[in-house]
Amino acid sequence: MVNAGAMSGSGNLMDFLDEPFPDVGTYEDFHTIDWLREKSRDTDRHRKITSKSKESLWEFIKSLLDAWSGWVVMLLIGLLAGTLAGVIDLAVDWMTDLKEGVCLSAFWYSHEQCCWTSNETTFEDRDKCPLWQKWSELLVNRSEGASAYILNYLMYILWALLFAFLAVSLVRVFAPYACGSGIPEIKTILSGFIIRGYLGKWTLLIKTVTLVLVVSSGLSLGKEGPLVHVACCCGNFFSSLFSKYSKNEGKRREVLSAAAAAGVSVAFGAPIGGVLFSLEEVSYYFPLKTLWRSFFAALVAAFTLRSINPFGNSRLVLFYVEYHTPWYMAELFPFILLGVFGGLWGTLFIRCNIAWCRRRKTTRLGKYPVLEVIVVTAITAIIAYPNPYTRQSTSELISELFNDCGALESSQLCDYINDPNMTRPVDDIPDRPAGVGVYTAMWQLALALIFKIVVTIFTFGMKIPSGLFIPSMAVGAMAGRMVGIGVEQLAYHHHDWIIFRNWCRPGADCVTPGLYAMVGAAACLGGVTRMTVSLVVIMFELTGGLEYIVPLMAAAVTSKWVADAFGKEGIYEAHIHLNGYPFLDVKDEFTHRTLATDVMRPRRGEPPLSVLTQDSMTVEDVETLIKETDYNGFPVVVSRDSERLIGFAQRRELILAIKNARQRQEGIVSNSIMYFTEEPPELPANSPHPLKLRRILNLSPFTVTDHTPMETVVDIFRKLGLRQCLVTRSGRLLGIITKKDVLRHMAQMANQDPESIMFN
Amino acid sequence: MVNAGAMSGSGNLMDFLDEPFPDVGTYEDFHTIDWLREKSRDTDRHRKITSKSKESLWEFIKSLLDAWSGWVVMLLIGLLAGTLAGVIDLAVDWMTDLKEGVCLSAFWYSHEQCCWTSNETTFEDRDKCPLWQKWSELLVNRSEGASAYILNYLMYILWALLFAFLAVSLVRVFAPYACGSGIPEIKTILSGFIIRGYLGKWTLLIKTVTLVLVVSSGLSLGKEGPLVHVACCCGNFFSSLFSKYSKNEGKRREVLSAAAAAGVSVAFGAPIGGVLFSLEEVSYYFPLKTLWRSFFAALVAAFTLRSINPFGNSRLVLFYVEYHTPWYMAELFPFILLGVFGGLWGTLFIRCNIAWCRRRKTTRLGKYPVLEVIVVTAITAIIAYPNPYTRQSTSELISELFNDCGALESSQLCDYINDPNMTRPVDDIPDRPAGVGVYTAMWQLALALIFKIVVTIFTFGMKIPSGLFIPSMAVGAMAGRMVGIGVEQLAYHHHDWIIFRNWCRPGADCVTPGLYAMVGAAACLGGVTRMTVSLVVIMFELTGGLEYIVPLMAAAVTSKWVADAFGKEGIYEAHIHLNGYPFLDVKDEFTHRTLATDVMRPRRGEPPLSVLTQDSMTVEDVETLIKETDYNGFPVVVSRDSERLIGFAQRRELILAIKNARQRQEGIVSNSIMYFTEEPPELPANSPHPLKLRRILNLSPFTVTDHTPMETVVDIFRKLGLRQCLVTRSGRLLGIITKKDVLRHMAQMANQDPESIMFN
Repeated sequence: MVNAGAMSGSGNLMDFLDEPFPDVGTYEDFHTIDWLREKSRDTDRHRKITSKSKESLWEFIKSLLDAWSGWVVMLLIGLLAGTLAGVIDLAVDWMTDLKEGVCLSAFWYSHEQCCWTSNETTFEDRDKCPLWQKWSELLVNRSEGASAYILNYLMYILWALLFAFLAVSLVRVFAPYACGSGIPEIKTILSGFIIRGYLGKWTLLIKTVTLVLVVSSGLSLGKEGPLVHVACCCGNFFSSLFSKYSKNEGKRREVLSAAAAAGVSVAFGAPIGGVLFSLEEVSYYFPLKTLWRSFFAALVAAFTLRSINPFGNSRLVLFYVEYHTPWYMAELFPFILLGVFGGLWGTLFIRCNIAWCRRRKTTRLGKYPVLEVIVVTAITAIIAYPNPYTRQSTSELISELFNDCGALESSQLCDYINDPNMTRPVDDIPDRPAGVGVYTAMWQLALALIFKIVVTIFTFGMKIPSGLFIPSMAVGAMAGRMVGIGVEQLAYHHHDWIIFRNWCRPGADCVTPGLYAMVGAAACLGGVTRMTVSLVVIMFELTGGLEYIVPLMAAAVTSKWVADAFGKEGIYEAHIHLNGYPFLDVKDEFTHRTLATDVMRPRRGEPPLSVLTQDSMTVEDVETLIKETDYNGFPVVVSRDSERLIGFAQRRELILAIKNARQRQEGIVSNSIMYFTEEPPELPANSPHPLKLRRILNLSPFTVTDHTPMETVVDIFRKLGLRQCLVTRSGRLLGIITKKDVLRHMAQMANQDPESIMFN
Repeated sequence: MVNAGAMSGSGNLMDFLDEPFPDVGTYEDFHTIDWLREKSRDTDRHRKITSKSKESLWEFIKSLLDAWSGWVVMLLIGLLAGTLAGVIDLAVDWMTDLKEGVCLSAFWYSHEQCCWTSNETTFEDRDKCPLWQKWSELLVNRSEGASAYILNYLMYILWALLFAFLAVSLVRVFAPYACGSGIPEIKTILSGFIIRGYLGKWTLLIKTVTLVLVVSSGLSLGKEGPLVHVACCCGNFFSSLFSKYSKNEGKRREVLSAAAAAGVSVAFGAPIGGVLFSLEEVSYYFPLKTLWRSFFAALVAAFTLRSINPFGNSRLVLFYVEYHTPWYMAELFPFILLGVFGGLWGTLFIRCNIAWCRRRKTTRLGKYPVLEVIVVTAITAIIAYPNPYTRQSTSELISELFNDCGALESSQLCDYINDPNMTRPVDDIPDRPAGVGVYTAMWQLALALIFKIVVTIFTFGMKIPSGLFIPSMAVGAMAGRMVGIGVEQLAYHHHDWIIFRNWCRPGADCVTPGLYAMVGAAACLGGVTRMTVSLVVIMFELTGGLEYIVPLMAAAVTSKWVADAFGKEGIYEAHIHLNGYPFLDVKDEFTHRTLATDVMRPRRGEPPLSVLTQDSMTVEDVETLIKETDYNGFPVVVSRDSERLIGFAQRRELILAIKNARQRQEGIVSNSIMYFTEEPPELPANSPHPLKLRRILNLSPFTVTDHTPMETVVDIFRKLGLRQCLVTRSGRLLGIITKKDVLRHMAQMANQDPESIMFN
């Protein structure tokens, strides 16, 4: 760390270091940033601007612009993220329908848009709108019969394969980082890791396009996770326009945290939920200032999306629901059961998915990503088409499952037998016996549930953009709706049972199966991601009322507890581990009794620590040391005997300073003594000119004593965002602990292979 | 800090230290806690329980109970806080009405409850309900005329004086800590300061009772801030029941953070807003686990309050509103103006209130708190009674101002001239010209506004419980409603102006003055407290829709910016400074260029640092040192010459260890050498038995180098919650920096008198 105070305070001998090498202070790819250093660099920059702003009006205006740039970036992120989300929604709508047929009036209309223009506007007539032609009608002019069915089936599979092939090829050729949900990597980046290009413009473009393709292809994946990645790419793009953010990796991460909030905000239409998601799930360093700005970005994004109005209903939220019936205490039991199901599903999914992804990484399977995608798409399409609940898009399915049955509902799920003796207003429908349609729907849903569970495990992790919010919610919603219908029919047919007697009189409102679907969705999402507050708040924003928060919360808590009992890691942490990213989780508690001395290097038996002395090594000595080791920096001590620590020198800066001095400073040769002290050491008369390197010396390296418990050390690494920390005993340097040493030690303590967890 | 690892690792010579002195490790009153130490003590406890739980079933059950105790505490806090809030609401309702009259059927009924039982149920007949008798009717059987008015006036003043006198006397006699809003002190306590009794049972009881009294007395104050204090007292009470929380000051503060969330949750019926308020405004250390639990506590509290149903409308929120009209972009201009007003009000209020409170502290005024309360109550009551907008309770006033005018509204504010030619559904009322009543209301509101502004400045800070959420919101709501009516009439009479032409056609919905009131309330509250996200979320929960978030956010942002331009401190920070609490704000940015060496003590010219040597001081030397100084602890060095640091010994533990050893260990006399090393030093043959004190030595004291920039030091103190930090240069001990040194330095840098800021 270049000490900010020392840098400005000491002489100007090395001032040339600042300008000609603009990359001093930036980091290499796959390296960890030093949060303290970034912060102090920003404070320095801020001080400079403040003091300059008093000099002239222009500088004052510049300082104002600088102060406002944070808000401008947020505004831009919100606008772009909202627009992209809207465009993606519209495109997905159109392309999903393209698998079934085409609009004659304009081929770029989706089924719904096509039929808006026609006169039949009610839901029931939707399929009869003449301008919309199924492929069989268009190609062989037949809409009924086995041959038409097979033709439509084939077209469905062909389109799905085409979309999937296009997507995986685009990802492979142009932007390999565009695959997956992106959230594990974003978590790692936000915790202070550098992955160049992960949030680049190409990734943004390709991810947006391929996201549309894969969602339309009917694969069992969602667009919500990738939308967070897309929003972060927007954030990265806009922060590169302002030097305040582009030149400071710490400040840039503040913008990215806010962008993640905007991403979730547009994915669900839940701005507060988005901010809490960013706070709870994604972010690492989240100061209050960022909270406020994230909220702003999330709101702008949500409003931009609403102005685009992709769902055509002026609603902000993806699944808008309104229930009319209250819930009863006894219903908590099935809700908690759904929570247990969600927890089990989460565990099953994480275990199987990780096992499959590991197999993909380690066996020949990983060499054929295109083939894998094609095969999975083909299987998905072949199995999905015959079942109406898997043929429609997953968001439509969830929407249908969440909905309460109104009187005008034409869905199979609402095929109840009406009691002809009762006359009631249309919106207020009592429990009724289920008709044939409901029973058909039940076994179709059961088949769809099994299919979804299996296929999602194989889909998540392929080399295409894929989110798992929507498939998880679908699994939960299907299970929930089935449980809901079960409870409803039980209550209807046995309304004389004690538990039903008080609240389920015949003819009265009783059970809302849609609410069960929503509770199930929350439970399954919670089991997979281990979200808590943000999950409940997102669901709260979907339902828009406090009424149903208790069922949701009961299910979310149960699901988290059940899932945690089988393993603490959520899917994102599991993927971080699988990929070996150096992510120091804030949530893990480190409770072992080890001390700093057990973790520091050199270990017993290893060669001693490579150190620099303050005034006795020659340029050549140092160059040899640099050549022979690959450490990121070297501690500087008074002498090899006393080993009293005076500072820390970064490898990069050392190399640059020596190169510079050799080129520009006269008299610097291999034999020149390098010194880090204020005054040059006393040298024999004929010795070459010495090289002063105090400017690059970090005079305030972070130290702990060898007796410091590792839990404290872990805490310090987490909270201060250190890269490394020196270990001393009574003032003598003993060793060094880097962030990777900490991670390795934590893995070791958790009985994991420490080498498997490093980035590979 | 007692090093956890070392403590358990080394011998058992001093094991007796743990048991007989249970207060080892607790803190003295008005001292700062050491977060790192508390955390490591909790990990230790946790480790012990985990290892024991494998021994027997009973221990396993105990470990489960321990793991669940956090949730149990949250549940209890939620239940009690919700109940207390409900009771307070009911009691305030009744006692406020008692100032006007009494219910004949049952004297404990409030006006509204009394008239529920009568047959007239519409709003207009409310005043004609025969069971409710004004004092003049009851005492002299006259309801009209000057004498009745004067009698009612007198009774109103008498009751107000009685309530206020009772309140201030109770506070003075039983619980002096029950005064004020409590939020500044809670912020300080949560940041790691000990104020014994501030959250005690007596404070809880007296604050609850006096809160009812002062709110009923009609003083210009609210119950929202004190409710947070009450909830924190509940939190403190319940955490004292579980050893996990009662014995660990760090864990206890997690519970208190959640309790603060529950407090705001019941104050406004806004659970999510409450959690964010706790996160943004009150808490210091807020891990994600606490976030989830806070949410749980806030929800339980909100639902408990709803079951009590004090407002009689099944609504959770205090000011439920539903608007029917959208807002237009051009309206942002008046909204931003209201934001400016809010910022100015915030600045004015903080400046004047702090000046008045300082005068109270420093002059003779502070010696007559009872008289002060009586005088202010008398003045308030005398001025308030004639004006209907100040006579009613402030929450009723805000409620009325927020409300949109429906067709059935009987309020003066809704006295518009109806156009007889129009027939419309009752809920859909277009803009109309204002009638006489609106103009009367306008000047009454203007007078009430001025009165509220002045009287609130003198009220907040008196020796009674007093919150300023409600008065601030009232000021904003009055200003906002006036602006709203102004804009509405402007739009009605000049609907041909360009800006109005598009959205204000005659006969169409146009401007909602109630929305202006709400925006004004948010702006004023934001100006005083500088809340941001939580303010917007609370308002969002009040309106229950995203529709109006943009106006609210625009006003909140503007108000914060305007107020920040005049001074960064919100009212709570200002009161913390006024009282000199050692509060290290997370939000303040420290941007000065000083180094640790500029802040550490001893300063130049001061006597050298008091240190202990590891093996050369006698018991008597140490006792003298302890007697002569009042430091909380002493660094231990190898020897006075080398000054190489080996650890830190706490004063408390040193005193106890010596006392113990003198009593129980044989051969320990004043001449005994004290040693902190593993092995006893080599002593002359006839010297007395040495005293080993390694057990109480903290082997991992926190150190920084003298060249560390103060911004980094401040960051470390904030993030790790340190009490002190030692300063070294090349391994040599130079000095010490305590939390108070940091605070003093920050005050100095901000050009404040450093001595004025210390607790006094």
